Parts: sequence; structure tokens; C-alpha cells
Amino acid sequence: MTGDASLTATGAGGAPEAVRPLFGTLALVGIGLIGSSIARAVRRFGLADRIVIADTDAHARAAARRLDLGDQIVATAAEAAAVADCVVLCTPLGTFEAVAQEMAPALRPGTIVTDVGSVKDCVVRDVAPHLPPGVHLVPGHPLAGTEHSGPEAGFAELFLGRWAILTPPEDTDPAAVAQVEALWRGMGSMVRHLSTEHHDKVLAITSHLPHLIAYTIVGTATQLGDDLREEVIQYSATGFRDFTRIAASDPIMWRDVFLKNRDAVLEIIQRFGEDLTELQKAIRRGEADKLEDLFTRTRAIRRGIIDAKQA
Amino acid sequence: MTGDASLTATGAGGAPEAVRPLFGTLALVGIGLIGSSIARAVRRFGLADRIVIADTDAHARAAARRLDLGDQIVATAAEAAAVADCVVLCTPLGTFEAVAQEMAPALRPGTIVTDVGSVKDCVVRDVAPHLPPGVHLVPGHPLAGTEHSGPEAGFAELFLGRWAILTPPEDTDPAAVAQVEALWRGMGSMVRHLSTEHHDKVLAITSHLPHLIAYTIVGTATQLGDDLREEVIQYSATGFRDFTRIAASDPIMWRDVFLKNRDAVLEIIQRFGEDLTELQKAIRRGEADKLEDLFTRTRAIRRGIIDAKQA
Repeated sequence: MTGDASLTATGAGGAPEAVRPLFGTLALVGIGLIGSSIARAVRRFGLADRIVIADTDAHARAAARRLDLGDQIVATAAEAAAVADCVVLCTPLGTFEAVAQEMAPALRPGTIVTDVGSVKDCVVRDVAPHLPPGVHLVPGHPLAGTEHSGPEAGFAELFLGRWAILTPPEDTDPAAVAQVEALWRGMGSMVRHLSTEHHDKVLAITSHLPHLIAYTIVGTATQLGDDLREEVIQYSATGFRDFTRIAASDPIMWRDVFLKNRDAVLEIIQRFGEDLTELQKAIRRGEADKLEDLFTRTRAIRRGIIDAKQA
Repeated sequence: MTGDASLTATGAGGAPEAVRPLFGTLALVGIGLIGSSIARAVRRFGLADRIVIADTDAHARAAARRLDLGDQIVATAAEAAAVADCVVLCTPLGTFEAVAQEMAPALRPGTIVTDVGSVKDCVVRDVAPHLPPGVHLVPGHPLAGTEHSGPEAGFAELFLGRWAILTPPEDTDPAAVAQVEALWRGMGSMVRHLSTEHHDKVLAITSHLPHLIAYTIVGTATQLGDDLREEVIQYSATGFRDFTRIAASDPIMWRDVFLKNRDAVLEIIQRFGEDLTELQKAIRRGEADKLEDLFTRTRAIRRGIIDAKQA
């Protein structure tokens, strides 16, 4: 199952080195939390001569101008693609196919198209068929984010010390892959390569299921009677409070994640549901040893994450 | 369902006022995260003349001595109870009945017995029948904690600005209730009264279910093949990482919480399971609007928690 996961570790993480500009013009399509963080980091670390930002939303464009996030702000991906040496798709996954179709006639040979989507197999499926020959697709995914959305929420340090996973198809031009790697390393990330399929399975567990569960449990609470709901908010304490933070993440982005990574997500929900049923039975039957055993095992995983410096 | 919840808000939170000693001798039975935090706070804010600590575990007693958490460190609850004006039970819920039986012959009339357990109905059930006449039971629960355990993990500020919920039976001596209120206010908490039943329902949602879910999902991950598990740890990202923190909480304490609040926990698991099945169906069928609608509603709850200053 993980034979395809022989990883190429590159990049050292920590503070980014000084790098000469990697690109003439970098285009960011979509200027939300991630797009605006890339804009800030690319400026801060001098990774491109020029930044062009495209967003179909007039409020987002106005914010990008106010925050001075780019050198040129345009409404369509096609306008940005026409002048770009590298395009980074930072819109929700559900838009990728239409954006690729729209950009295609404008893209010049040699241009790199990459993205930051949380599912990777669908990027190859939805984007690759529309790109003209000579344009290089290097799908990518920074494992970084917050529960906040929009251009104001971004910050240049978002990717510092975090993983960026690239999932280039095997026949991708190595020079294009190296450029995208250098972009992420330049923003302070550590870079690894995975297959799209493997990426989507790992993320279904580490990110998509936790978000789905958080949305569910907070949703369960919204359906309580008014008085009880008020008290749930009042006494959110540790536990529920963390779930509400996760469940405050961008609704459109997450809708698309679940629809695009459907099979892997449904499989892991299935496993999770079976495990929850087991615990439910143990509680019903008063099986103290079974509960204690599981709760002790889960501590070890936390220890692993602390050791991996991802806590 | 919430008619019994007419709350008596007392205490202002924030920095505790200077209070004269409330108790001659305060006994802490169990010196883990919560017990040791109380010990530190009571000392810091001068809430008792003398602190006696009882713990059956020799390592915990040694740590309590090393950390100078109390004036006297003993092995049994009975020894502590014999000299106490107020006893605070800080052991796992599963020990309460035995501890109450053990303390009973030693308790003097007028002594207050309170606790910090996460379930309250069982305290009345397990402790009250064993207490001699004239001893006052005031069940309590500070909504505060961390994922760390043991005497070293405590700190005096743990309760600052957090809720302490008291669930005294209706015929409890008002002066005893006022003393326990003053203890929590003195440590910086805000105090509210709830019925035991209502407390246990609210906490089943805000705390017990989130912990159970976190234990389940991290448990699901521990059962993955070795390679995939390593990657789940490596790429824990946002989401899973938060769950592992919750799932690193004390195993014995949580085992007892689920066993002691069985009915309320099973009811809320049932509701959660139904809601998860709905989401699962929506993903399977590609119902984008349904997903977006839920994900948008859950944001509002987060806003409520931020407004309630519990974020």
C-alpha cells in the first residue's frame, strides 16, 4: 500500500535561505488565506519579480489592493495566466476544471501550473487534460492553514517549518518540479513527493476525517434545544472548543474536499464508524479494561507527533 | 429539559481578589493535574491555613513533597479526612465510593466534602450515602484541564477565568455551598449552579463526546499498517494533531467518565452517529448544497464561543 511512498526529502525547513527570484511573474489565482499567504511570503523572501493576482470576487480584489498583495490585480484567471511564468491555483477544488479550461488558450509553453488543493488525484483528472502541450502541471499541497479565511487572514510565516507535498505525475519535466520545490523551500517549507493516490489516503485520515467529525459534532450541537445550545456554548471547555475551531474552516473549500476525495473519505468514515461502535458497546457493557487499553494506546501516537515536531 | 437550569451566576472571574483563609485545613485527595493545581492556587491566594495531601501512589507523594505542594503528605484519604475542614476529592471517579467509605469514620461533623469530577450524578449516588450526619457534600466540577497528567503538570493559574460548576442537592447547607463557591472564586473561577442531571447532559456534549471521538479517530489511526501510520504521524497537520492532543488525556480518568456518565454519553453518541450517517450519505450522493449548508451553520457556533470568551 505504501510502496509508492518512497519519499524524496528535500529542504531543511526553518528559516528560508536567501534565494534569487525563481520566477519572473508568479500568478496567484484566488486570494484567500493560502493565496494571500503565498503573496506575502513570495514578496518577503524575494521569490518572484512580479506578482499577479486573479480573483473573480470584487471584494477580494479590493482587499488585495488595499493590502498591497500584488503588482497587478485582475478579475480572471486567463488574464493572469497570459503573463505568468508560474500559476498557482488557490481557489476551491470545485473550480479547478473551469479555471483550467479558461486559462488554457492564454498559457504560454514552458509555463508551470501548480496548486495548493487538499486533494491531489482530482487535480490531475480535472486540470491536466485541458493544459496545452509544453505547459507543466506540478500538483502541490502545503500542510498549513488556519480556521480563518480571506485575503486578510494570510501571513508570510504560514508555511514556515510545515510540509509541502508535491505529487507530480512520473513524466513531469524535472526542471519544473525543481522550480516548484524551490518555491516552497523559499517560503520555509519542507518538501516531499508522494503519489496522488497515497497523498489522498493519508490526508483522508489526518485532515479530512477530523474536519468531517468536527463539522458533525458541532452540527449535532446546533440541533439541540435553544437553552441547552446556549449552555453548550457557555461551557464549551476543552474538547468541544477545539472542534468548533476546526468546524469554523472555510465551508466552500471543505465542501469541495469531501466531494473530490469521496472514495478515500468514505472508506475512512466506514472504519471510524466501526471503531466508534466498538467503543459504544464497551461503554454500554461497562468494559473498563477495553476503554483503558485504547485510551493508553492513543497517548503513544501523540508522543510520535511531538517527536516528529508537528505538535 | 433545561427548566432546572436557572443559573445563579456568582464570581467575576479574572484575577482573584485577596481573600482571608477560608479553611483551617484543606485536604486534597489525589494529587494529579487538578489536585496539584488546587494546591498551588490555594497557597498562592492564601485560601487555607494548611494543606494536607493524600495519595495512595508513592511516586505521586514523593513528587508532592519535592514540589512542596502541601504541609503534610499522607498515604490514605482517612488520615487526611481526620484533620480536614474541607476535603476535595481529586481522584478518578471510579474510586469515589471506596474513598467515601474509607473516610467516613474519620470525618468530623461540619466538614465539607467536595470534588472535581467530570460527572456529577454519580457523586451524589456514590459518595452521599456513606457520609456521616453533619458532613456537607457539595459536588463541583472545574471546567479546566490540559492533556497532561500528574503532580508536575499542575499550575496555579489553571482555573483563572474558567467556570466552576457546583451541583449541590437542594437540601445542602447554604453556608457549606458558599464556602466552596468562595474557594473557586478565590482561585479565579466563575461559579454557576446546575442540577447534576443537567450538568451531565451538557458535559456529555461539550466534553465527553469530543474526547470519545478523539480517542476513536486516533485509535483508528493506530490500526493502520505501519507505513501509513508513520505518515499519518509525519503529516498530522491541522486537524488530526488537535485530536491527538485531546486523546493524550489521562486514560483512567476518562475511562471512569464514560462508565459513570454512560446514559448521557450513549444518547449523544447515538445522535452524533445519525448525523454522521447523514453527512456520509450527502458525500456519497454528491449533495454539495447540503454539505455547504452544514459547514456554514457550524461557523456560527464558533462565533458564539468567541463572544462568550471561552475560545
